[in-house]
Amino acid sequence: MALLVVIRHWVVEPWLDRFRRLAPPGLRVLDAREPYDPAEIEYAAVWRPDPGTLAALPNLRAIFNLGAGVDALMADTTLPNVPIVRIVDPDLTRRMTEWVVMMVLMHHRRAGAFRDQQARAEWRGLRQPAARAVRVGIMGMGVLGQDAAEVLVRLGFDVAGWSRTPRAAAGVTMFSGADGLEVFLGRTDILVVLLPATPETRGILNHALFAGLARDNHMGGPVLVNAGRGALQVEDDILAALDDGTLAAAALDVFEVEPLPQSSRLWRHPKVTITPHCAADSDADALGERILAGIAALARGEAIDPAHVVDRQRGY
Amino acid sequence: MALLVVIRHWVVEPWLDRFRRLAPPGLRVLDAREPYDPAEIEYAAVWRPDPGTLAALPNLRAIFNLGAGVDALMADTTLPNVPIVRIVDPDLTRRMTEWVVMMVLMHHRRAGAFRDQQARAEWRGLRQPAARAVRVGIMGMGVLGQDAAEVLVRLGFDVAGWSRTPRAAAGVTMFSGADGLEVFLGRTDILVVLLPATPETRGILNHALFAGLARDNHMGGPVLVNAGRGALQVEDDILAALDDGTLAAAALDVFEVEPLPQSSRLWRHPKVTITPHCAADSDADALGERILAGIAALARGEAIDPAHVVDRQRGY
Repeated sequence: MALLVVIRHWVVEPWLDRFRRLAPPGLRVLDAREPYDPAEIEYAAVWRPDPGTLAALPNLRAIFNLGAGVDALMADTTLPNVPIVRIVDPDLTRRMTEWVVMMVLMHHRRAGAFRDQQARAEWRGLRQPAARAVRVGIMGMGVLGQDAAEVLVRLGFDVAGWSRTPRAAAGVTMFSGADGLEVFLGRTDILVVLLPATPETRGILNHALFAGLARDNHMGGPVLVNAGRGALQVEDDILAALDDGTLAAAALDVFEVEPLPQSSRLWRHPKVTITPHCAADSDADALGERILAGIAALARGEAIDPAHVVDRQRGY
Repeated sequence: MALLVVIRHWVVEPWLDRFRRLAPPGLRVLDAREPYDPAEIEYAAVWRPDPGTLAALPNLRAIFNLGAGVDALMADTTLPNVPIVRIVDPDLTRRMTEWVVMMVLMHHRRAGAFRDQQARAEWRGLRQPAARAVRVGIMGMGVLGQDAAEVLVRLGFDVAGWSRTPRAAAGVTMFSGADGLEVFLGRTDILVVLLPATPETRGILNHALFAGLARDNHMGGPVLVNAGRGALQVEDDILAALDDGTLAAAALDVFEVEPLPQSSRLWRHPKVTITPHCAADSDADALGERILAGIAALARGEAIDPAHVVDRQRGY
């Protein structure tokens, strides 16, 4: 009996370490980057495996997806018909909130301008209004958006949210639907995007949307913070908007193509902050234990909680 | 009747703008950087005025101090014997919390390492444990320390506090006195300092203290975050500790000498983040109104709330 660890784009070692340390006797943990016997594999712990990798495993019994999104997995047309177990992890929410709050604070408190001044040994104050004078708008008010909003409200920001259908959130001015979008954008200095990628949201972060944001603030214009999905954004439009002043800055964790190609001008743009799709990393320590417990339960013949199994019809 | 605005080290214009916009007819607002008639001045709004400036005003009736600390003012041996009105401002607390939370998140989430990778167009994940695995220790658990602690606890950090005398704070492991310091330091990955400058705390941030901090974390060692007072820190020791690996990084808003001299090696040290004593700027918008209301009350012959008047014996 073996667990195959198939991870692309992430550092693999912490996952292997954790699985190997916690695996019960009789469960071998194999690294997909090294040779292995496909017939031996009964379980796979995966993040964005190459299409076809899982189809080549004749005795596979279950797939454990290590991240929050299953869109990459569902795009594999050869995916074998075994249960895909979704990771339900409150840790992911906390991590996303850390990243969003950090990026909002860094732009509000002008970390980049102070860094530039430091490089010149220049001691100079900069205009820094109170948080209550800064309007943060969050697109996507699911679990992630609501948690980030709660901390931003606690910090004193003037927070609004936009969602596809009407919702409520304490201390947050809510907007919804196509009708609410224009007013929402017009009162937004820092736009935080936590939307899922759907046919409706694809390419929504384009020049026309940026042009609708609020312009009169101490950051020199509106700021885009996207930790949702790369498919939401039109990167040529982000670059054009930064260059023509429609956007003052962008902090991006997700990209149209990942890894972001070396040739992308985003890497080198002085107004862009890039992190390599790690805003809400899955935590090997926490998830490793949960996955091994799931494998033990399956090995004992128990069923997986249906709420944790991906519905292939719905696609999530 | 005139109000003299005497500000060093800060941007003066927002204060002048706000005072001039709000001043009632009959109150002239004068800029101390331009010529003025000393006899005309009845009120002064000040931040770190040069010693002697206020003594030269024969008709001065009250001094309004624009920042939280009065130590610079009390050091002026020529200070005339008129009431010094202290600014009591919840805004300052919020601003300090913004700065502290931003610096803690930037080190925890390794913003500097990701920025370096971005400069090389390098797409690579880095180890980022959950906030609960990161131990933040706050020295100084007054109003500022407690507010920062509350937000850091909400973000999931493992927060401890140290104060001179025993205190309690929700969700925070508290230590106190000389006896508690060693244990407090030994469980601290990120040390946040919000102490006042007193004879007891002067120079407390020295190499021996840094050597007592926790060493085993994903940031490469302990991180110092000082937004208290520059007199707390021995800058030669900070540099030595950064160079010999006793400290992994430092974020400093305050310095032994301010403005920080151009010659200081802190400006250029790759592990140091510098802001020019602006972690908790006073807000011209909020405070301007309050000061003008105070002047109006004095002009009507009303007394100032004694709780807002500095006690010269105590020194604060």
